[in-house]
Amino acid sequence: MPGNAFGTAFRFTTWGESHGLAIGGVVDGVPPRLPLTEDDIQPWLDKRRPGQSKFVTQRKEPDRVRILSGTFEGLTTGTPISLIIENVDQRPRDYSEIKDLFRPGHADFTYWKKYGIRDYRGSGRASARETAMRVAAGAVARQVLNAAWGDTFRIRGAMVKMGALEIDRARWDWDIVGDNPFWCPDAAAVPVWENFLTVARKAGSSAGAVLEIHGEGVPPGLGEPVYDKMDADLAKAMMSINAVKAVEIGDGFAGVELPGEDAHDTMHMEDGAMVFDSNRAGGTLGGITNGEPLVVRFAVKPTSSLPRPRPTVTVDGEDTAAITKGRHDPCVGIRAVPIGEAMMACVLADHWLRDLGQRGR
Amino acid sequence: MPGNAFGTAFRFTTWGESHGLAIGGVVDGVPPRLPLTEDDIQPWLDKRRPGQSKFVTQRKEPDRVRILSGTFEGLTTGTPISLIIENVDQRPRDYSEIKDLFRPGHADFTYWKKYGIRDYRGSGRASARETAMRVAAGAVARQVLNAAWGDTFRIRGAMVKMGALEIDRARWDWDIVGDNPFWCPDAAAVPVWENFLTVARKAGSSAGAVLEIHGEGVPPGLGEPVYDKMDADLAKAMMSINAVKAVEIGDGFAGVELPGEDAHDTMHMEDGAMVFDSNRAGGTLGGITNGEPLVVRFAVKPTSSLPRPRPTVTVDGEDTAAITKGRHDPCVGIRAVPIGEAMMACVLADHWLRDLGQRGR
Amino acid sequence: MPGNAFGTAFRFTTWGESHGLAIGGVVDGVPPRLPLTEDDIQPWLDKRRPGQSKFVTQRKEPDRVRILSGTFEGLTTGTPISLIIENVDQRPRDYSEIKDLFRPGHADFTYWKKYGIRDYRGSGRASARETAMRVAAGAVARQVLNAAWGDTFRIRGAMVKMGALEIDRARWDWDIVGDNPFWCPDAAAVPVWENFLTVARKAGSSAGAVLEIHGEGVPPGLGEPVYDKMDADLAKAMMSINAVKAVEIGDGFAGVELPGEDAHDTMHMEDGAMVFDSNRAGGTLGGITNGEPLVVRFAVKPTSSLPRPRPTVTVDGEDTAAITKGRHDPCVGIRAVPIGEAMMACVLADHWLRDLGQRGR
Amino acid sequence: MPGNAFGTAFRFTTWGESHGLAIGGVVDGVPPRLPLTEDDIQPWLDKRRPGQSKFVTQRKEPDRVRILSGTFEGLTTGTPISLIIENVDQRPRDYSEIKDLFRPGHADFTYWKKYGIRDYRGSGRASARETAMRVAAGAVARQVLNAAWGDTFRIRGAMVKMGALEIDRARWDWDIVGDNPFWCPDAAAVPVWENFLTVARKAGSSAGAVLEIHGEGVPPGLGEPVYDKMDADLAKAMMSINAVKAVEIGDGFAGVELPGEDAHDTMHMEDGAMVFDSNRAGGTLGGITNGEPLVVRFAVKPTSSLPRPRPTVTVDGEDTAAITKGRHDPCVGIRAVPIGEAMMACVLADHWLRDLGQRGR
Repeated sequence: MPGNAFGTAFRFTTWGESHGLAIGGVVDGVPPRLPLTEDDIQPWLDKRRPGQSKFVTQRKEPDRVRILSGTFEGLTTGTPISLIIENVDQRPRDYSEIKDLFRPGHADFTYWKKYGIRDYRGSGRASARETAMRVAAGAVARQVLNAAWGDTFRIRGAMVKMGALEIDRARWDWDIVGDNPFWCPDAAAVPVWENFLTVARKAGSSAGAVLEIHGEGVPPGLGEPVYDKMDADLAKAMMSINAVKAVEIGDGFAGVELPGEDAHDTMHMEDGAMVFDSNRAGGTLGGITNGEPLVVRFAVKPTSSLPRPRPTVTVDGEDTAAITKGRHDPCVGIRAVPIGEAMMACVLADHWLRDLGQRGR
Repeated sequence: MPGNAFGTAFRFTTWGESHGLAIGGVVDGVPPRLPLTEDDIQPWLDKRRPGQSKFVTQRKEPDRVRILSGTFEGLTTGTPISLIIENVDQRPRDYSEIKDLFRPGHADFTYWKKYGIRDYRGSGRASARETAMRVAAGAVARQVLNAAWGDTFRIRGAMVKMGALEIDRARWDWDIVGDNPFWCPDAAAVPVWENFLTVARKAGSSAGAVLEIHGEGVPPGLGEPVYDKMDADLAKAMMSINAVKAVEIGDGFAGVELPGEDAHDTMHMEDGAMVFDSNRAGGTLGGITNGEPLVVRFAVKPTSSLPRPRPTVTVDGEDTAAITKGRHDPCVGIRAVPIGEAMMACVLADHWLRDLGQRGR
Repeated sequence: MPGNAFGTAFRFTTWGESHGLAIGGVVDGVPPRLPLTEDDIQPWLDKRRPGQSKFVTQRKEPDRVRILSGTFEGLTTGTPISLIIENVDQRPRDYSEIKDLFRPGHADFTYWKKYGIRDYRGSGRASARETAMRVAAGAVARQVLNAAWGDTFRIRGAMVKMGALEIDRARWDWDIVGDNPFWCPDAAAVPVWENFLTVARKAGSSAGAVLEIHGEGVPPGLGEPVYDKMDADLAKAMMSINAVKAVEIGDGFAGVELPGEDAHDTMHMEDGAMVFDSNRAGGTLGGITNGEPLVVRFAVKPTSSLPRPRPTVTVDGEDTAAITKGRHDPCVGIRAVPIGEAMMACVLADHWLRDLGQRGR
Repeated sequence: MPGNAFGTAFRFTTWGESHGLAIGGVVDGVPPRLPLTEDDIQPWLDKRRPGQSKFVTQRKEPDRVRILSGTFEGLTTGTPISLIIENVDQRPRDYSEIKDLFRPGHADFTYWKKYGIRDYRGSGRASARETAMRVAAGAVARQVLNAAWGDTFRIRGAMVKMGALEIDRARWDWDIVGDNPFWCPDAAAVPVWENFLTVARKAGSSAGAVLEIHGEGVPPGLGEPVYDKMDADLAKAMMSINAVKAVEIGDGFAGVELPGEDAHDTMHMEDGAMVFDSNRAGGTLGGITNGEPLVVRFAVKPTSSLPRPRPTVTVDGEDTAAITKGRHDPCVGIRAVPIGEAMMACVLADHWLRDLGQRGR
């Protein structure tokens, strides 16, 4: 069983290496008669695109998506949607000197061990470039969900920690998230992070980050017991993103410290409707959505491509040092916000269609 | 797509409610000619079984497993292995008064929303009782892996935090893990936890926990890019366990705070072999095992069944309070250690067979 | 990827060998709140059960099914339904002398080649006994479809050819199908077949058969282009039944001989509704149901277990002869009618739920 | 669950409509380090390409395939292989007058019923054009199998019946199959068929065909009991091809007429090796290959696009007539030979990798 597809009812398969001719994906399972053109996808890709501030890689990729199939006169037809992005800014020269060594923190070594062959140009298939297709698939997923759930449905994300610098959640303001280069919801944190990351970048260092994605307006009842729980699939989705090393839902690790009587969301009636008194669970109970906002956090490790020598070995078993001269992000977490949002959209579209398919009528 | 199966090449499907006649599972994809009898499975179930100390539920379930198919004269035949455990200690009376309300922190509400019908006896399918079958499947997975990888392969787990009380990792001693009721590797922490949990239990409270599972002797090259990464599947596996709300690999969330130059595992040659200088990655790079021990931690929320009233609502929309009178664990995390171990075994067996199936010869 | 499961949205996994303790299956994906008890399944099993006439095996198996999970107070709960049938009439003695040889026409040789181990008692997993679980799963599928489609939906089957003796389709009468031991719809053929099969049986021979299954009242629009077409999945379903060697839909092979202008179903309007002028397509166009009755035929080869010596070789590579002394069907096709019906029900339930899951709302 | 993918371990997903910008596919699961360039694929596409004789459609499509990912320096890398063929000869004008009606024998009606929207240009996704991608995937599958099984492995196909005209199997000569426009193995049949099809074409009629595909040099032991049997998957593969209505393995339907003692392949020892005395089973026993050549036949119905008026109805429910003015094949079966060969290659590659993945070491 190969592993380049995600989802079951809403299923996308991606392909492409960072320095090949193109990257692309096929989204299968999209319901018919939904509005979909390149204009519905491009804005999300733009959000992820490199080169937008000095804090992300300066690699110039317009990341212009094209739809090659599956739509007719602006509507989906129920047939597979093929998406393609041509690779424009290919500079294989940059990578020639890393050809025969294993960069620390990269997948060079493990791809070599698994496949015995490696497309060494820009990490090949392990490149973060693959995530552009996740964002594109997420845009298609949003069309599915918007049509089904309407305006109250919304997915949005933010960076809540950079390096050791955490936001003050009391100052959380969604309105400023799009106005700073870090998707930071805490205005006071922005200049601090800016200073921190500038210093790190100049020092040839890099920084990790914690991101938080919210899904609002999600109906209760989604998620399939017992192995394909909503939170299990969200965890898999986020952990499959490059450089992610941890995922939590709701209170997550912090919830462990609470006494049992404070750790669960009690309920009461209000104006004839059941209301949860809190959302410690982060929107799921028993792996099924409960109607509260989904809250997922995940950790992105510091960028492993560094412009300073790091000890490693060559393919032929000799000690050496790796140094990255190319263009790279000092904090890859920044660009992971739209990716995390997209993966949540894909998981939700998948579970929405799965749930429809279990209702029986 | 229903959700009661886990894995692809090594695939198990479980069934059964906590208060039905039995619970069971079918393990499909087990290679032929491996030794397997009930005696290979029972010890792992005994490790998870209730009633072994005052810190776990006193429900009396012998959890005696029977193999109904798939073996012949003590060896697997390559056909599906059916496992069954009869439910002995059924006391439906205990649950009659929770029949019409939604217990906080339980799946009552979400099952109701999803299915419109609910087997209210002891949480039905959402009961932790289902995890017995995970442990049984894990025992079968171990037979697969032992035959392939030999003696250097080992999975073991421990509890590293109870409530807010964390172990001192400098005192980690695997040898004592089996000798205390908490799977605690820090001898000094045991009496502290014992006191803490006794107080909590008497107060009608409960405690969360963080568990850590190690997989040693795992060959490099396992995990399928890009969506079925080893860490992604481990995250899904752990997050699918009842009450788990967070998962991390290697440094996990803590790794975010490190500067890039300290966050990745450098390499050097030693006696002709490549050696990693550290294991911050927790055994995976690019979603593929690197030969270092797999290190996974996950958070189990405090038990939600409490012997004290908690505000909630009834099925008919009236305010009420839920109180659990039955026998329950003050810290469900304790019994999750063998479950986490079993899930890692299943993920590894699955990826081992998947990898074999991608080699082509 | 193991192969003991069928379907995707309506998915069942079977287990068990003919001479083990029991056989069973798990049906996952059944919608909640459908009526289901053992009484909904048993009649279909009785239809397939051995020992009902002198033309089927005299093996005595009551084939009493039990539901072990997934229902509550007579209704499905949306959780997996575990079904079990205990093996009562086990006589391992009968099989001792075939232990070390490969019976012609049986799976003995290929199981040996594939697995290197073989449960030789009564064909193990390759026994037709496994089909009892298909019939049980089919009964569950019917509950799904009856609830969704109502009374106009009906699946029924008949035998249309035994050996070289074909029915006269002009005499087709569904009403007599259940009243003769062959599920024959042509009253005039019954005594002819009876004589033919009696002679064959006494001569130590056996006969093949062609069966035809009709699915009426199936809504248009079911089937997933392009690989999971309705006819493709029906073909797989029927071909997976023991001893089946051919499948056709509608005109099938005979349709090849028609000129193009006569080979397709034209349409016209009648009372405001579109009507097909014929059903040469057998109910599918482009792999999607068109609202006409599904018509599937399949060929069952003559029983391979014969009470006369047949040349073969031993496991150790010596020439020998195989002879079956046990109780066997002179025409296994007879008992395949309810199995074919059940497989059609399973395919339809699967595609019905899949289609629901692609509609998007 | 969408349906545009085939296979599990060797899995390909196709996309594209006949008159869109391009068609394509992604092949996932291909083992690494196999030789693969466009030159390994193009010859098989050329074999299927339109416009090669007066007996196939004159639509001009160079069908030039490009590999967009998954290879590096002429070798596969283990990552997904993206294949694309641009649509060159798009003439949407030809289809404008069939826009609002349902052509008999086509999928127009059923796509409309299923999706409520239809890309009416040249049958959209239901076009036989999709099969080009099957042929391309088959070429990749052959690389997998050639590397594993060597020179004794070979797949080849022939047409054995056109309309009512069957070949004389005594005259079967593989050497002439590639030298006539019909893939006919009987030299005497060629001029007869040529005359027959010329007359049919001029009369505005069309003809059906029966094709036979052989797989030689296939090792025993492939196929997964009990639902994913080799013959079940071959049946699905062939039945999923456009216009196919019947499939049989080995003796198929004809085997029904044999007495049991003549219907099965007996065995004997010869020079120390087991030898089958015949191949009535067509290479499978119990759904597992037995080492004998796989023999599959399938029926292709007469072309449904006819240049003469046929009664039908419009989308708006009015009686009308459909007539096809475009370029079409008088016998679509001709071009189905390489498609059937390709599907067999894909099924074998899939089961080969699946079997490897079940061996355990």
